[in-house]
Amino acid sequence: MNNALQYAEKKFDTFVGELEDWLRIPSISTDSKYAPDVRRAAEWLADNFRGIGITNVELLETGGHPIVYAEYLVGPDAPTVLVYGHYDVQPPDPLDLWDAPPFEPVRKDGVLYARGSSDDKGQVFMHVKAAEAYLKSGEELPVNLKFFIEGEEESGSVHLAPSIERYRDKLRADIVLISDTALFGEGVPSITYGLRGLAYVEILLTGPNRDLHSGVYGGAVENPISVLARLISGLHDAQHAVTIPGFYDDVLPLTNQERANYRALPFDKEQWKASIGVEAVRTEEGYSILEATTARPSLDVNGIWGGYQGEGAKTVLPSKAGAKISMRLVPNQRPDDIVEKLRRYLEARVPDTMKLEFRDLHGGYPSITPLDSPAMQAAKQAMQAVYGREPLFTREGGSIPVVADFKRILNVDTVLLGFGLNSDSIHSPNEHFGLDRFRQGVECIIRFFPAYREQMASAEIANKS
Amino acid sequence: MNNALQYAEKKFDTFVGELEDWLRIPSISTDSKYAPDVRRAAEWLADNFRGIGITNVELLETGGHPIVYAEYLVGPDAPTVLVYGHYDVQPPDPLDLWDAPPFEPVRKDGVLYARGSSDDKGQVFMHVKAAEAYLKSGEELPVNLKFFIEGEEESGSVHLAPSIERYRDKLRADIVLISDTALFGEGVPSITYGLRGLAYVEILLTGPNRDLHSGVYGGAVENPISVLARLISGLHDAQHAVTIPGFYDDVLPLTNQERANYRALPFDKEQWKASIGVEAVRTEEGYSILEATTARPSLDVNGIWGGYQGEGAKTVLPSKAGAKISMRLVPNQRPDDIVEKLRRYLEARVPDTMKLEFRDLHGGYPSITPLDSPAMQAAKQAMQAVYGREPLFTREGGSIPVVADFKRILNVDTVLLGFGLNSDSIHSPNEHFGLDRFRQGVECIIRFFPAYREQMASAEIANKS
Repeated sequence: MNNALQYAEKKFDTFVGELEDWLRIPSISTDSKYAPDVRRAAEWLADNFRGIGITNVELLETGGHPIVYAEYLVGPDAPTVLVYGHYDVQPPDPLDLWDAPPFEPVRKDGVLYARGSSDDKGQVFMHVKAAEAYLKSGEELPVNLKFFIEGEEESGSVHLAPSIERYRDKLRADIVLISDTALFGEGVPSITYGLRGLAYVEILLTGPNRDLHSGVYGGAVENPISVLARLISGLHDAQHAVTIPGFYDDVLPLTNQERANYRALPFDKEQWKASIGVEAVRTEEGYSILEATTARPSLDVNGIWGGYQGEGAKTVLPSKAGAKISMRLVPNQRPDDIVEKLRRYLEARVPDTMKLEFRDLHGGYPSITPLDSPAMQAAKQAMQAVYGREPLFTREGGSIPVVADFKRILNVDTVLLGFGLNSDSIHSPNEHFGLDRFRQGVECIIRFFPAYREQMASAEIANKS
Repeated sequence: MNNALQYAEKKFDTFVGELEDWLRIPSISTDSKYAPDVRRAAEWLADNFRGIGITNVELLETGGHPIVYAEYLVGPDAPTVLVYGHYDVQPPDPLDLWDAPPFEPVRKDGVLYARGSSDDKGQVFMHVKAAEAYLKSGEELPVNLKFFIEGEEESGSVHLAPSIERYRDKLRADIVLISDTALFGEGVPSITYGLRGLAYVEILLTGPNRDLHSGVYGGAVENPISVLARLISGLHDAQHAVTIPGFYDDVLPLTNQERANYRALPFDKEQWKASIGVEAVRTEEGYSILEATTARPSLDVNGIWGGYQGEGAKTVLPSKAGAKISMRLVPNQRPDDIVEKLRRYLEARVPDTMKLEFRDLHGGYPSITPLDSPAMQAAKQAMQAVYGREPLFTREGGSIPVVADFKRILNVDTVLLGFGLNSDSIHSPNEHFGLDRFRQGVECIIRFFPAYREQMASAEIANKS
């Protein structure tokens, strides 16, 4: 491994120079007029793979933008790591808020400014260069490597799940490695091991067959807004827990270790409250803010509508009222099951004055990678070696659907080894990536491979004994 | 009175011909390009008053369209009747749905088709021609008559209340008579003696200072839509009564006579339900549909909004949620008092996670004219003589703000002696008015005057003894 580390150190400036070349290609996937640039960015990456000695490289056609696939196999005894990332970028608007043009990278005070520098070309390129460090330094690569780098992440990854299905055999792996998230803070190493899933529905209540005059009918016709309010109101109890029968049945309880990890996270409650302008929090009783937002399921009404919303007074007794309701799920809740439970809950409570329409708008599975798994332990070792301190283990409250897709289709867990920062201005003007983090990322990945091989070997022995 | 009745009978065709002339003037008050026509319609009416022998006629300037005022006084011993109505009309759109042009009156099978024929030129003109029948037949007019006919009813009557204030002395009267409502049914005489009032507010809840990602924050930040739903849900109890403390304190209970009147009204519950497409009704426990919609107060949410209302799924935890809430009031509830009670109710229940903004969008007082009052008894006699059967006494669920304004400013009750039908297509294409009803209206008003004078005299004697 030392040869690889020394190689990476020596070639660091070259790496950054290559990354700058790649960043110059405006691979904006949401805007069809950039489609040729998106393909050019894919081809550029394929060429770079070939340049570092990977021969098995191809563009997988999807019907949309291609996926760059690259594979370097060292043998059946080595574990296989599948690297996922994306080479497409967000549109750079509003352009006038950039200090320099978004596709003309600028290095300044150890920071690289360009659209895609952090999200996600810069982080993908750490993996490419970590591979190069092995393949070009003569160091033996300890793992089989597969790269699966898509070009539609910023436009909804519409062809991703079907492509994983289609290339299921090609993508067989022991672990998925993704660098597309953020560190807990500057210089604070962290590994995300859990994500929440999502179940999202839309409901519509219809009372009278048209909007009525509230003077003429008010008092004898039940108002769909009132009924909707009653249904929504009943979804939480006084302890802010969700009341849907069976909602918590499959929730994996937090372990003592996890709760200890949560308590160890640096978290300033007052600063958190101030940042969103609330004077009081409301969590499920018995859980901290971080636990409640990442390791416990939640239910939110994302939208509601009905009747007259314009200025002034209109005395309508509306025919319809609707709402969008979503639930963040945690392992081992299943979106379909939770949607069904909500449907049954609502149907049992709709009065005879109303009709209920219920639409499942789909969602995604939650995910968790066990803390004691070989990949998680290897990531911890690598992080610790780079940063000189143990990484924090965190769960996130949002969803990264691809993680659930890899789990569902390939039955493979994911390690989220992100080196971004929330302050990187991804999706905003002046996106940037610290070159120190780029360097740390390359080093961490180089260190991860042998650690992972060793952990897998130990786990195998433990399983056999 | 017989001379007046004979005169009206003889001149009926002339009356209709004059009305047609008036209907030819497109007095559309909402559209400023018709302002000259509106004024022309006012002047036409003033001229008609002069033509029947009323000399005290003037256009009261309001800042908007003028009010036509006419006065014929017979002496201080006679009671004074103030006739209110409006000479402006609704816009005729959509024009292509009219069988004949809206301002070219057509008489067909005893029905007069034109915009304004029923609402309200036709009904106002009954009063003008009833006066003519007295003044031109040599019959002594039994009452002092004042006419106050506005030109802004279809555009919100914005200058009406200030004008009543301004001409308070001129408008002094014992009763207000209005023909701008409908009979209970074809050939079913009825008198409306009560109207509900209105209190209307808008509320806005603010939780976090911006829309949040429901994945990142869901579970620790209280959702303003959920809180709004809880507040709204609490406004009714299981018996569909309003829960605001003190809400019913000033409600005048229905008398046994009124409840008997309600039971006597022809009302087909199944037909009513079918007409609005509901399978079940929900009234305040213990009250019938007609009682609940006209003689009991009600509360409706007229509009609600918050978060994402577009297509598909957006995982927002919204900053704000709002609603419009109105209450129909019955005597002796007061809008300001009820608004204040609702405000206190809500403020006591808003959790510490939210801020509440509360706006009073104003409303109007309810009204009731006692059934045993001289005017009501006189109207009953007149109706009975015309139709050969006792009229039904009804209350309406909506509001006619001018009735409350006359009560509040002049302290005068109103008798709503309407000859429209709900099938007259007022505000719609092919508005029409049955000539039989026009004839019955004129006769009824002619009969009302002596009956009213007599009732007032009896009441005076009763008061003295």
